[in-house]
Amino acid sequence: MIAGNFIGNTLSFSNGERFKTLNPMNNSFNEIELIEATPDEIQNTCLIAHKAFPKFNATEPKKRAELLLKIAQLLNENSTELLHWYQLESGLTEERGKIELQRTILQLEDFSSLISKENWKNSHEKSEGSLNDLTTQSLKKIKQGIGPVLVFGASNFPFAYSTIGGDSVAALAAGCPVIVKSHPFHAVLSYKVAELVLKAGELTQMPNGFFSHLNAFNHEVGKLLVLHPAIKAIGFTGSIKGGLAIRKLSQQRPDEIPVFAEMGSLNPIVLFPSAIESKKDIQEITSKLAQSITQSSGQFCTKPGVLFLIENDSTREFIFELTNCIQHSPSSSLLHPTIAENYNQLRTQIEKIPTVTKATIDSFSTNSNVGHPQLSITDASTFLKHSLLQEEVFGPHCALICCRSFEELFNCITRLMGQLTVSIFSKETSSKEFSNLVDLTMQKAGRIILNGVPTGVQVHAAMQHGGPFPSSSDTRFTAVGTDSIHRFIRNVCLQGFE
Amino acid sequence: MIAGNFIGNTLSFSNGERFKTLNPMNNSFNEIELIEATPDEIQNTCLIAHKAFPKFNATEPKKRAELLLKIAQLLNENSTELLHWYQLESGLTEERGKIELQRTILQLEDFSSLISKENWKNSHEKSEGSLNDLTTQSLKKIKQGIGPVLVFGASNFPFAYSTIGGDSVAALAAGCPVIVKSHPFHAVLSYKVAELVLKAGELTQMPNGFFSHLNAFNHEVGKLLVLHPAIKAIGFTGSIKGGLAIRKLSQQRPDEIPVFAEMGSLNPIVLFPSAIESKKDIQEITSKLAQSITQSSGQFCTKPGVLFLIENDSTREFIFELTNCIQHSPSSSLLHPTIAENYNQLRTQIEKIPTVTKATIDSFSTNSNVGHPQLSITDASTFLKHSLLQEEVFGPHCALICCRSFEELFNCITRLMGQLTVSIFSKETSSKEFSNLVDLTMQKAGRIILNGVPTGVQVHAAMQHGGPFPSSSDTRFTAVGTDSIHRFIRNVCLQGFE
Repeated sequence: MIAGNFIGNTLSFSNGERFKTLNPMNNSFNEIELIEATPDEIQNTCLIAHKAFPKFNATEPKKRAELLLKIAQLLNENSTELLHWYQLESGLTEERGKIELQRTILQLEDFSSLISKENWKNSHEKSEGSLNDLTTQSLKKIKQGIGPVLVFGASNFPFAYSTIGGDSVAALAAGCPVIVKSHPFHAVLSYKVAELVLKAGELTQMPNGFFSHLNAFNHEVGKLLVLHPAIKAIGFTGSIKGGLAIRKLSQQRPDEIPVFAEMGSLNPIVLFPSAIESKKDIQEITSKLAQSITQSSGQFCTKPGVLFLIENDSTREFIFELTNCIQHSPSSSLLHPTIAENYNQLRTQIEKIPTVTKATIDSFSTNSNVGHPQLSITDASTFLKHSLLQEEVFGPHCALICCRSFEELFNCITRLMGQLTVSIFSKETSSKEFSNLVDLTMQKAGRIILNGVPTGVQVHAAMQHGGPFPSSSDTRFTAVGTDSIHRFIRNVCLQGFE
Repeated sequence: MIAGNFIGNTLSFSNGERFKTLNPMNNSFNEIELIEATPDEIQNTCLIAHKAFPKFNATEPKKRAELLLKIAQLLNENSTELLHWYQLESGLTEERGKIELQRTILQLEDFSSLISKENWKNSHEKSEGSLNDLTTQSLKKIKQGIGPVLVFGASNFPFAYSTIGGDSVAALAAGCPVIVKSHPFHAVLSYKVAELVLKAGELTQMPNGFFSHLNAFNHEVGKLLVLHPAIKAIGFTGSIKGGLAIRKLSQQRPDEIPVFAEMGSLNPIVLFPSAIESKKDIQEITSKLAQSITQSSGQFCTKPGVLFLIENDSTREFIFELTNCIQHSPSSSLLHPTIAENYNQLRTQIEKIPTVTKATIDSFSTNSNVGHPQLSITDASTFLKHSLLQEEVFGPHCALICCRSFEELFNCITRLMGQLTVSIFSKETSSKEFSNLVDLTMQKAGRIILNGVPTGVQVHAAMQHGGPFPSSSDTRFTAVGTDSIHRFIRNVCLQGFE
């Protein structure tokens, strides 16, 4: 089988570069061959999305709600095949795949409910005014899609943040046609999901061009898409480097379009002395933390990458237990050899800082893509001196920073760049130190967690997934939950109509 | 008297460049001398705003609501002196000044009401969940200010879009300290308004640094402010050139901050044949339009700059009447000699296009700053050929485009860049042409007006002031009405608190 590009409903086969995806568990190529989209195909895709926009935007929100439910249904019905490819292309477990697929389906259902609400489209109204008003005409402000949205598939969420993940579903719900540039790591899964989305579109009579799907092995496809005048917004989830590159490229456009990039985070954990007063506390917290750091090989944007604690009598036991838990956490392959290479390079660089101790030992493995869980331990002054320790290490790594005082801890937090989350573990919540820390972290992060871990992002309107730069490119928006629809909505005021 | 810079509550006098403002009605300098802010003063201002932010952001919204009402009260009490300087520095009439001041006061009251609402700060909540959830912890999403906001005073709205205008009031309501870079055309008025804002802050016990005010004669002050790391958002109202320059400069920052620039618009008027079937219709519409084009010398971002009509028997009479009305509209001085120069240059360039007819004649005036109302008439193919006709002519100018068919008209609208508004005059609203036009204009503009003029922007939550690029830099936001607060708000999710 050869997988072409979906230019709207049309499956196109060109002379573009052929490529295959890699199974990171054994470094073998997967069966299906994909064809990279050519400049002509990209142009046609953008034009068809541009043409579809007014039609798709004008569909009743309830019709689009049906589309989303139909997609959810088809994902469910085809879960066996999808999960097969999910594992082959990501090396993630079936169990993780099932959770992620359920989350993706939940997202589709949530947005479907949102836009099914009677007056969803209506933002505000004002009836005809008096002569004191600047105009006596009535005003009615209604929601519109912003235009065709380009979505970059994410390497670490083949379901929930890729083809029909959070960005795509928010854009479709808003009334925006979507063009997915699939992630080359899981291009076959993406292709198969796209097939289902298009089938759902056919069954619910959506206009041709409401959804397109392009294969890309090189950066060129993304570049041409970012610069195309038909594209009116961009959604990206990935590294700071990737997000900033897209942002920079988009600045070459003659117009300005919103680029929402969720670019990862250190997700600092702050451990207050009151949290680890008993052996039981220590066991519970270290077990939770180790799981949060190592699950899915630490390949979450919300993985805790740094942990601050204040040294005292309990500290040594806590560190011993955490090291033990991390050391004994199962290790599995990372998403791709390039991810494994980056992971090993970064953690080795950190290890080489003279005042950093590597507390864990790599286990033996025949698979060079395995991400060995690692805990690095150092002090506050090292953290303050080395910007390397503020870089996200994508994989099961965490740096533990031993502070001698609350003041040192506070200095470290003050110097943190913008984060998606900060977690605070503390039994007491009435001290001056606690409230000062909460106040400070609220300026640093989009979500503050008390006595919990940052992984396991609840899909809900009350969720905030997006924090100050560089954790996301626009801290005013969220990438998770129904509020994320506002990234792709503009309002139009109708004055004097009816 | 010499006017220094307000670094928070401290009035600072430096060795910065001295300058005076100009009275455009007679080209004489006004009395008071102002001192331009020095780099040191700019640095201190940014630091004090940065320091004030956590305190100001933590004030109860109801306390900030009191601040806004106190400012409104002081503006009211000091209106005589303010209106005196308003006229001296802008050349706009006292009547216009009174309307604008009332609007500014209304804006303060509106935002005060908004943030006084019981649960204003709370966006969404979720109580503790079941084990099926990704986390069982409760979620509470609350609104926060984004950080210190830099506001550029606008030349054409000394009250409503400057010192304590729409951007400043939205930022203060959101909990963001404001730094105003005053507009050099009306720097004395701006200084006097700033004094009142700071007095209101003192009376309502706001932290020092919640508001600062800097004089600037050269671009350097604005440049240093845009690049300062303490600034977390920017509000600008002005020309496309100015807005894009700020945007471009902000791209040199290592971080990314939201820049909301409202950059003007052509505010196209579309006249359907059904609108001008009777003499009475023609008289009513031409009178309304001429007023909208010429009032305050056409110095509104919502001034109609282009008018499309379809030629038929009534057209000649309509054009005759409109020319007549515009010719006899009162002319007065523009805001500043540089504005007058730009106006005359642009309208002369348009006049020089061979297929453009100047329908009006300049009246005689001894004041070189007078903006002579001008109607230019041409055809659709000229409009499509000359991008000059898509440029905003800031002043009392309008171009009338005679289309031979609905198709030609539609072609022109399709080629329009993004606009703040489009107005449609039509008696019938059930034809295919009408609904096609509405659909198309909704993609082109933020506000569609039926049988009304775009000037007279109602301050209301249902207002949308901001359209596709280049009319504004981010079409998802509005610059007028309480929804404009979202430009300066981010949300933080508190997980597991209480």
